[in-house]
Amino acid sequence: MPPPPAVMVAQSTGVSKSGSQQALGGGGNRYDQTADDWGEQQDDWDDDWDDDNDTYSEIGPGSSAAGRSNGQTQSYHQQQQQSATSSYYANANLPAPPPSDGDTMSLASVATTAGGGRSRAAGTGKIFSKSGDNYLMGMPVPDVSEADRVHVLLMEHGIVWKPMRDSYTVSVDSPKKEKKFNGLKSFIAYQLTPSFNNIPVARRYKHFDWLHERLVDKFCLIPIPPLPDKQISGRYDEEFVEHRRIQLQEFVDWVCRHPVLSTCGVWMHFLTCTDEKKWKTGKRTAEKDPLVGTMFCASVFPPEKTLLQSLVEPQVESAGQFVPQMDAAVKTLFAICGDQSKKFQVQWKKEYQRIGEGFSEMARALAVDERRAATQLSLSSSVGQAAGVFINIGQLFGEQPKHDFIPFSDRLHIYRGLLAGWPDTLGEYRNAVQKRKDCERLTAEQKMENVQMQEVNRRVDVMSYALLAEMSHFRAERDTHLKDTIRNFIGEQIEFYKSIVQKLEQAQTHF
Amino acid sequence: MPPPPAVMVAQSTGVSKSGSQQALGGGGNRYDQTADDWGEQQDDWDDDWDDDNDTYSEIGPGSSAAGRSNGQTQSYHQQQQQSATSSYYANANLPAPPPSDGDTMSLASVATTAGGGRSRAAGTGKIFSKSGDNYLMGMPVPDVSEADRVHVLLMEHGIVWKPMRDSYTVSVDSPKKEKKFNGLKSFIAYQLTPSFNNIPVARRYKHFDWLHERLVDKFCLIPIPPLPDKQISGRYDEEFVEHRRIQLQEFVDWVCRHPVLSTCGVWMHFLTCTDEKKWKTGKRTAEKDPLVGTMFCASVFPPEKTLLQSLVEPQVESAGQFVPQMDAAVKTLFAICGDQSKKFQVQWKKEYQRIGEGFSEMARALAVDERRAATQLSLSSSVGQAAGVFINIGQLFGEQPKHDFIPFSDRLHIYRGLLAGWPDTLGEYRNAVQKRKDCERLTAEQKMENVQMQEVNRRVDVMSYALLAEMSHFRAERDTHLKDTIRNFIGEQIEFYKSIVQKLEQAQTHF
Repeated sequence: MPPPPAVMVAQSTGVSKSGSQQALGGGGNRYDQTADDWGEQQDDWDDDWDDDNDTYSEIGPGSSAAGRSNGQTQSYHQQQQQSATSSYYANANLPAPPPSDGDTMSLASVATTAGGGRSRAAGTGKIFSKSGDNYLMGMPVPDVSEADRVHVLLMEHGIVWKPMRDSYTVSVDSPKKEKKFNGLKSFIAYQLTPSFNNIPVARRYKHFDWLHERLVDKFCLIPIPPLPDKQISGRYDEEFVEHRRIQLQEFVDWVCRHPVLSTCGVWMHFLTCTDEKKWKTGKRTAEKDPLVGTMFCASVFPPEKTLLQSLVEPQVESAGQFVPQMDAAVKTLFAICGDQSKKFQVQWKKEYQRIGEGFSEMARALAVDERRAATQLSLSSSVGQAAGVFINIGQLFGEQPKHDFIPFSDRLHIYRGLLAGWPDTLGEYRNAVQKRKDCERLTAEQKMENVQMQEVNRRVDVMSYALLAEMSHFRAERDTHLKDTIRNFIGEQIEFYKSIVQKLEQAQTHF
Repeated sequence: MPPPPAVMVAQSTGVSKSGSQQALGGGGNRYDQTADDWGEQQDDWDDDWDDDNDTYSEIGPGSSAAGRSNGQTQSYHQQQQQSATSSYYANANLPAPPPSDGDTMSLASVATTAGGGRSRAAGTGKIFSKSGDNYLMGMPVPDVSEADRVHVLLMEHGIVWKPMRDSYTVSVDSPKKEKKFNGLKSFIAYQLTPSFNNIPVARRYKHFDWLHERLVDKFCLIPIPPLPDKQISGRYDEEFVEHRRIQLQEFVDWVCRHPVLSTCGVWMHFLTCTDEKKWKTGKRTAEKDPLVGTMFCASVFPPEKTLLQSLVEPQVESAGQFVPQMDAAVKTLFAICGDQSKKFQVQWKKEYQRIGEGFSEMARALAVDERRAATQLSLSSSVGQAAGVFINIGQLFGEQPKHDFIPFSDRLHIYRGLLAGWPDTLGEYRNAVQKRKDCERLTAEQKMENVQMQEVNRRVDVMSYALLAEMSHFRAERDTHLKDTIRNFIGEQIEFYKSIVQKLEQAQTHF
């Protein structure tokens, strides 16, 4: 298939994608991505971002450094590792190296930059972007191995990703502050243990960040859950590290539940590679993956059946209305959670402690008078007990956000990131539809061959299938994951207020 | 007994009483009394303060105006009144008119003004003040009828007022906005119904205020519970009227539980008089009561046994430490109650409603997507239910202070007023002790006769007995009344948090 005529490139400039980005206040798929964030890569946190001196200890558990610092847990996992003969997933799963450069690719690259592709991809001079042009406009589709193929099924209840054969979980555990360069530099390595092999791997935030970038680049039709926000100060603070662990667990859980993400090569590499050499090879392979952006669709295998545009369009239209509304709602609740967390931790805690101190003051005053004439009943002591209970309730308030508002906001953070990704995803589809219209016109004017037009139609269908499958997945996730989230939130609030009742009942026994 | 020599008057200037007043931020027995408050008597609220045109409807239930506005309840009470042949307490209980003016009284009056008596009493040119001088320094003691006598008993557990023979309660009910002068003026009349005769009387705030002034003047050794604060604006507001009713009930309850206050003439007159003419007579009689201030001690009949100063002194000393500490504690808790009431009614209510609105926004967003593809599960509807529950919880927060913080603060208001009265009460005692020392010196210098000295000793003993009896009463009240108060407060908080748990459990059924 020849490269698309130049006129089409010009027409595709400024597709709806950029419009949807503006509606959500700008920003790319990483909703919290700002120029500053990227600038931070130069600071201490990211100083070894592309450090080829990565020590083995940062990748797998077998290094002496990790072995030393992880202690007992590590020993257990080492045994597990030795008993497991091999990983279920081999690096062979990683995509094949990209085809060698040629004229076609150079042209596609130019088209991408002109076509309003992601500034990040364009700016860093990447070969592939997410612009629909590459895939739709006749980029040659490389052979995709069976392992890398993604299937879409047409089920009774809708169009879905082919469900996972073996679902699994990954636990993100006990981060350790580790040291390298003879203790001159320290870093936090989280321990990831997949349920399918029970072999822990140590991963730093920067590894997650690298992985995240790969996933965002690769899956243009799948919004990727966000990582926890970057943070410069206090990142060795125990509470911060533990909270980030929980947030990373949320990220990992979401990926694990996704039929496409949970089986993709770069994720498996991230999850299982314990060998330094293989890590570097896999890393470079992933960075040169040709099936990124819309080209990912080359690995999507949907049903043969042609999709009616009248079936797809209303769904996309509806999603286009849903996404900004849901995004606004999630942001509102996220802000409320942050606000309430602070109020519980500071204000309400203080209020109840103040009540306690008031009672305590009264107890001390009563004690003065009870020294004058002691009676069997010591009101002073009763009031003192009540004081203690109220101070205690204050502490409950202070600790409560850890149980309800913060976990809730961690979940909302995931949705916030995903919802920020949806406009781009929908934009890719709208871009493709626009391209198809252009091609239809060209075909009508006999400037494009029918066979080419058929191929464009088929490829738009593939993208549509993928989009609808992802919409189904997101919907299903919401219906379980978001529901769980709210149930847990309410459940924790119930426990909280119950424990206040218990404390108060304890106080009441003194009166 | 001759009037005291001039030298003693000079020595008694600036007794500890004024010191204790300063420690509590000044103010007399009515802790919230300011010049402005008294100025307010000139405004509409108090314009008929000394209005001799008081209509019958303001005093008793028999008037046509009261009968009309009180409706059914009134009819019932009218029947009750008709069936009751006469009040258990007659106006005959009121003290006899004061003796005619003479040299002795004039001298005592001068001594009072010079001796640092209450500025209010002195300023208004009253014949008697609370200064200990009158009683101690030989004011002739009028005959006190058996009905007016107050007995102090020496019991195993201490010195106490002789307990009431028949305790009773008085309900303060359904205030009605009534009108007089052909509807040109309106006022609020509270309906007081004593349990001993079941005959309701209508009393306005100004009647309470008049009564309160009488009680404060009369009982120098008994701190009088305070009335609710005066208020100019919004005093016909339903919520304000109902709250004032509750506060007046607290005042009435305290008086009813007091062995001395609950049986005194002016209180009985206030509680039972339903006849306009008798009301005015009784009012003037009470205003001319000679047994006010320390002269009240003339009606106190304690045991004959001489009190050891070494027994009394430490008790007074201890009370002197207790009172300011307790006062500070009560003020702290009172401030907390006011603060929390506002926070519950405004902030916390808003916080929970905001959470509810956040969920509501999410429910609306989800509804958009559920229209696209309806499933059996409607997360939108579940989230909507949760939204309703949180808004509901917000309302609970808004209404809660009525059940816990406000009733608690109403009780604390009583203690605040009583504790503000205690320094004066203790000051009266200290003043008397100082006077006794002066007399002892004079006696040693043979400037005072032994028989006079013995009388002074006896009278100081009477005051000491009365003081210790009142201290016992206050202590006993605290041990039941304050205890009840805190138990109720905690109980209401328990109910509140339980109802939140119920609401949340209701929300959880949707997830």
